Amino acid sequence: MIGLEITDVVECNGVREGKYGVAIARCRGAIAGVFTRNKAKAAPVIVCERNVEDGVVEGLIVNSGNANAFTGEEGLRDAERMCEIAAKLMKCDVRNIAIASTGVIGRKLDMEVIERLAAEAYRGIGRSEENAVRFGNAIRTTDRFVKKASRDDARIAAVAKGAGMIAPNMATMLCFVFTTAKFDAGEMKEMLRDAVSESFNRLTVDGDTSTNDTVLLISTGRERVERDLFEDALKDVCFRIAKQMARDGEGATKVFEVRVRGAIDDEEAERVAKAVASSLLVKTAVFGCDPNWGRIVAAVGYSCSKLGDMSISFSSDDREVVVVSGGRSTGKEEEARSLMKENDEFAIEIDLGVGGGEGVAIGCDLTYDYVRLNSEYTT
Amino acid sequence: MIGLEITDVVECNGVREGKYGVAIARCRGAIAGVFTRNKAKAAPVIVCERNVEDGVVEGLIVNSGNANAFTGEEGLRDAERMCEIAAKLMKCDVRNIAIASTGVIGRKLDMEVIERLAAEAYRGIGRSEENAVRFGNAIRTTDRFVKKASRDDARIAAVAKGAGMIAPNMATMLCFVFTTAKFDAGEMKEMLRDAVSESFNRLTVDGDTSTNDTVLLISTGRERVERDLFEDALKDVCFRIAKQMARDGEGATKVFEVRVRGAIDDEEAERVAKAVASSLLVKTAVFGCDPNWGRIVAAVGYSCSKLGDMSISFSSDDREVVVVSGGRSTGKEEEARSLMKENDEFAIEIDLGVGGGEGVAIGCDLTYDYVRLNSEYTT
Repeated sequence: MIGLEITDVVECNGVREGKYGVAIARCRGAIAGVFTRNKAKAAPVIVCERNVEDGVVEGLIVNSGNANAFTGEEGLRDAERMCEIAAKLMKCDVRNIAIASTGVIGRKLDMEVIERLAAEAYRGIGRSEENAVRFGNAIRTTDRFVKKASRDDARIAAVAKGAGMIAPNMATMLCFVFTTAKFDAGEMKEMLRDAVSESFNRLTVDGDTSTNDTVLLISTGRERVERDLFEDALKDVCFRIAKQMARDGEGATKVFEVRVRGAIDDEEAERVAKAVASSLLVKTAVFGCDPNWGRIVAAVGYSCSKLGDMSISFSSDDREVVVVSGGRSTGKEEEARSLMKENDEFAIEIDLGVGGGEGVAIGCDLTYDYVRLNSEYTT
Repeated sequence: MIGLEITDVVECNGVREGKYGVAIARCRGAIAGVFTRNKAKAAPVIVCERNVEDGVVEGLIVNSGNANAFTGEEGLRDAERMCEIAAKLMKCDVRNIAIASTGVIGRKLDMEVIERLAAEAYRGIGRSEENAVRFGNAIRTTDRFVKKASRDDARIAAVAKGAGMIAPNMATMLCFVFTTAKFDAGEMKEMLRDAVSESFNRLTVDGDTSTNDTVLLISTGRERVERDLFEDALKDVCFRIAKQMARDGEGATKVFEVRVRGAIDDEEAERVAKAVASSLLVKTAVFGCDPNWGRIVAAVGYSCSKLGDMSISFSSDDREVVVVSGGRSTGKEEEARSLMKENDEFAIEIDLGVGGGEGVAIGCDLTYDYVRLNSEYTT
């Protein structure tokens, strides 16, 4: 299925040079943003939050290769300068420029490179398929592929970068959701917050966000779309992008959802789901296709406040293998192992046997390549 | 320096057969224990807590190879049966047997093997150096070496197993501290709790303990040791064992202390120290000898509530390299890299620049071998 492209909504382009990439988009309309809760907010996040505040946007500029984080006053001036560069190119108000950065922390931005690449990107700005591809490529860092999702019925097209699922940690996540559906900025903010909490926040433990995480929703059109439909579509798009990020978790070979039910409440279910999804021992067991439910039990045990007769199963699209039922092993480890080997995506379903609380988290495995990428990357 | 051996305090022995190991000690006296806070407590932990309650001990039995965790009523019966086996061999009251298990979760104990190995261990029980070595070896699982520490002045000798530092997670930690110093069980419990909170709890994030973690303090003698001296010595012994566990973190090549000061209070300092020590990105950077202070900043940012002008340095016994001062990079990354390369143990010192709170955590690096060990181990 060929869905809506971001170039069906905005004019855009991107260029790369060495480690740097710059992407720009012309997008007059309304904007809402959700930003990192990290206390060490990067300069572009501070500037973007301020520029997005009034809900009005005219342009977007993003760079990869340097996060412009922990760069002090100079970093703030550089982020503002990036907005000026974009505003000048697009001939618009500098306060209506949205901005984001991703890459290494603590280095001064090379403003000469940024300025040159921005100008080059602007010269080629347009609505071709190639423009969309170049935008996506320009915002990548260690991403193996560009993340994209769309919903034609709601007139939504999104593009993103990130391998944020290496929770609980800080791989930067940037997601730009464009739509031609018309909503006011206040509505957009509400809907975006809900969508983020049911998608990206399931990838990374609350608060454990990077210095630069940014999700923007930009509406450039005047199409009428039912709010309910749009809300659902927005959640769907964000959830699919979150899963793509998990699949691209640095070095990951498997993606798994952890679905918890039977907890005393939803909050506890979510906490347990995240604990299981981010347990290093569960993640390495998944890499080894080892249905090691003992490690799952242990992670449940240290994250829950009340535990009944637990059940645990592994499930794929077409089957479910129960490995623990009513607090006892079923002896079906070999079947579960096959399911894990045969599927790159599966779910771990856990019933705590206590109440009605439900929660979901998304995880991926921990592999040799994760260690390689992160012990060799940067500085 | 050859210190006190556990065989200077107790008669003991241990044997191994395949994955199983059984260690026993004859130790009449007073006992105190600190146990896992995991909600899925293993059967031996439940039985040991109950047997230790009255502060009286006559014998200890430990097995490796099977944690007897998540094994239901049958598991409880097996743990009790293990105590009976030990009590029968040592001709003492079954309620005065302390017990611990470590190994895979969710499997029934092979009681025939346990019984046979216990009898064999008992036959060879004694006070020779070899007895101490065999005890230590019998309680190992993936440990590369036996953990030991002693303080002659306080008449303390301890032996332990565990690579608990792979926080936040659940590698089982067992530590047995023997002494000939006389204290009553109540005092011992207080002192042990304090010592654990300043040693093992700095390795693993609070609450993220395994199903089987057990630390026992057993006094078999009547020697008079000043309480202050004993308290200090106990903390010292536990801290040194905790560091040995970090050094033996599964696959670890480097051990680092994270020392945080300048936080709004001690609690926050400790939380930040643990967040930095358990950040996967910091751990992989340490493996790569990469003084990637950006990742440290990010972990501080997501774990603290207030941040001032931060300073960060790397320090070894003989020097300190400041990489961030007053919120700015000092450009000394290359010096810091050398320090990391030249030392298998170093500290990351972080000043948050806000208040007077201090905290310490112990971490180790995340390596290819960690992934190998944990994706290949068990089931």
